[in-house]
Amino acid sequence: MTLILSNADVGNLLTMPECLAALEEAYEELAHGRGVSRQRSDSIVRTTREDALYSLKSMDGVIGKLGVGAVRINSDIVTWPKFGNNMRRVKVPAAPNQRYTGLVLLFSSETGEPLAIMPDGVMQRIRVGAANGLGVKYMARANAKSIGILGSGWQAGTQLTAACAVRTIETIRCFSPNKENREKFSAEMTEILGIEVVPVDSPEAAVRGADIAMCASNTVDNIFFEHYLEPGMMVSSIKRPEIAAPVIRRADRVVVHTQQGKPMLVASEGLDVPEHGEDKGWGSMAEIDFTKMPTLPEMIVGKCTGRGSDEEITVFLNNLGLGYQFAAAGAVVYRKAKEQGVGHELPTDWFTEDVHP
Amino acid sequence: MTLILSNADVGNLLTMPECLAALEEAYEELAHGRGVSRQRSDSIVRTTREDALYSLKSMDGVIGKLGVGAVRINSDIVTWPKFGNNMRRVKVPAAPNQRYTGLVLLFSSETGEPLAIMPDGVMQRIRVGAANGLGVKYMARANAKSIGILGSGWQAGTQLTAACAVRTIETIRCFSPNKENREKFSAEMTEILGIEVVPVDSPEAAVRGADIAMCASNTVDNIFFEHYLEPGMMVSSIKRPEIAAPVIRRADRVVVHTQQGKPMLVASEGLDVPEHGEDKGWGSMAEIDFTKMPTLPEMIVGKCTGRGSDEEITVFLNNLGLGYQFAAAGAVVYRKAKEQGVGHELPTDWFTEDVHP
Repeated sequence: MTLILSNADVGNLLTMPECLAALEEAYEELAHGRGVSRQRSDSIVRTTREDALYSLKSMDGVIGKLGVGAVRINSDIVTWPKFGNNMRRVKVPAAPNQRYTGLVLLFSSETGEPLAIMPDGVMQRIRVGAANGLGVKYMARANAKSIGILGSGWQAGTQLTAACAVRTIETIRCFSPNKENREKFSAEMTEILGIEVVPVDSPEAAVRGADIAMCASNTVDNIFFEHYLEPGMMVSSIKRPEIAAPVIRRADRVVVHTQQGKPMLVASEGLDVPEHGEDKGWGSMAEIDFTKMPTLPEMIVGKCTGRGSDEEITVFLNNLGLGYQFAAAGAVVYRKAKEQGVGHELPTDWFTEDVHP
Repeated sequence: MTLILSNADVGNLLTMPECLAALEEAYEELAHGRGVSRQRSDSIVRTTREDALYSLKSMDGVIGKLGVGAVRINSDIVTWPKFGNNMRRVKVPAAPNQRYTGLVLLFSSETGEPLAIMPDGVMQRIRVGAANGLGVKYMARANAKSIGILGSGWQAGTQLTAACAVRTIETIRCFSPNKENREKFSAEMTEILGIEVVPVDSPEAAVRGADIAMCASNTVDNIFFEHYLEPGMMVSSIKRPEIAAPVIRRADRVVVHTQQGKPMLVASEGLDVPEHGEDKGWGSMAEIDFTKMPTLPEMIVGKCTGRGSDEEITVFLNNLGLGYQFAAAGAVVYRKAKEQGVGHELPTDWFTEDVHP
């Protein structure tokens, strides 16, 4: 049977410690050249809406050791509204019942069969959290106790959960531009973590004196600047545009998630896709060659060092997500779903065939 | 509701003339830079079987004009046995009930929603047939009456159906190495086409004097050679290794399906993947630069000419399939399935989400 799982199922099944462990093992496989990761691609065309584009995003990964392959697909109606000085990428919930379309398809690498189909949203934020959590594990000071976080949205929660799973955190301060959002988020995370999260009214107030500065926004502009840096600080980012280029140049060590730092863009002729533009987002670090930087998988297997001393400034830049992460997290979710009898079971024959295609 | 369709549904719904028309329109969009096609990728790792590899293949396409995007996925256990002097790529039906895993996911480019999920096998052969049928339409002599076909397998049938849909064919000869197979195939196709298909015992006997020579094999070695060529012949191939390089050099006009003539290969370190090797298959035409050749979409919109005179030798090389074709064919299948109430309906909510991922 092929399992159809919901975001609620994924949220119940995939704990942060399990996701951290699965990703760490998967990155080892990747670093040793056994696991494989197919770079994200964005296929983008116009829609009949003037302000929106259609984006079909896909990324694949296979981890033979875990017996799985995964394809993650996003089928999005995307707009780029301005919020104050910052432009954001905002998806429109245009599917029936005002919903978004993002899927993970999990396959067996031993039989080829489709094991499970599930939405990507909850897994997406847990795996982003876990990747940056591994960044913190290898790059923050061993005695790091305080976090300043910029952002209070969808990704911010798992950033904190993951960091708190790898360090003994005592203090967390949070800034995001909307006061109501940051206060609500701080109250919720205080409850979840059992550590007080204090909302503050400027980015500087959040990161000043923090051992770990985490960016968790949906901006396509810079939000973390060189003058925020302090000796011994570890800076973590979930997407390339967040950190200004001088921060990268100033840091003692910079580790990226992947050297394939840019998705493959396949767009209709003449389309201006904001986050792929030269002057915005990706372009803000155009002069930095990410293809030569050490990666998280390399750091995990000891091919590079995350931190050399307590005084160093270190940066982990989760510059681009990998379908590979969904294979690792998906393997955990599938195993537990089978054990616990969770999900809708559909005949696997519906998703397989008797012809040799 | 999201439709789950079977190969039988696709076979009943998608006629060759409809597929030819949908692809022709889709290729026009592609040639005009409005439709987009993301090149196939093959992510390949070892399995626990010594003779087999696991291949997770994906390819995407979006056709705004038809309101659809598609991802085609193959999750295959692959072996490369030798048959006589030729090596073949053979998938192992390792999924439950000895089945293969190949899927097409069809999305709306206006709402993002998943419209349908279906196996790829039947659509795969119809769209390969239709692509080569368009090659025949634009590159064979207008008065072409005879076909010689090399191959009697899964792809061969739709090659004939498509060619017969665009030319008035009177004579068909078929060769494949296995006598029983070619006789069975010839009898079946005679029935289907209402045109006698004659099995013959050598490739030369099949193609000698043929106006249209079609290769429809699963070889990874050359099967069509320069000395088979005759003035006025149109040669059609469904995969790059079939035609020997001298045929390409000798032809007056060569049109390819796509300039992205090679899939993106992402394989575990040290893996030898036969059809990606330098000395086999893809490598046999290594000296020919496919990225500079005119393409089928360009020919359809008149950016190049398929045939200049009745004496010319022309070659259409379907060098690599496109996910884009599945979007075009999928749009036809989905429309007709909705009209006719075909398929299992599942709640679209199962494949969408209320979180902004």
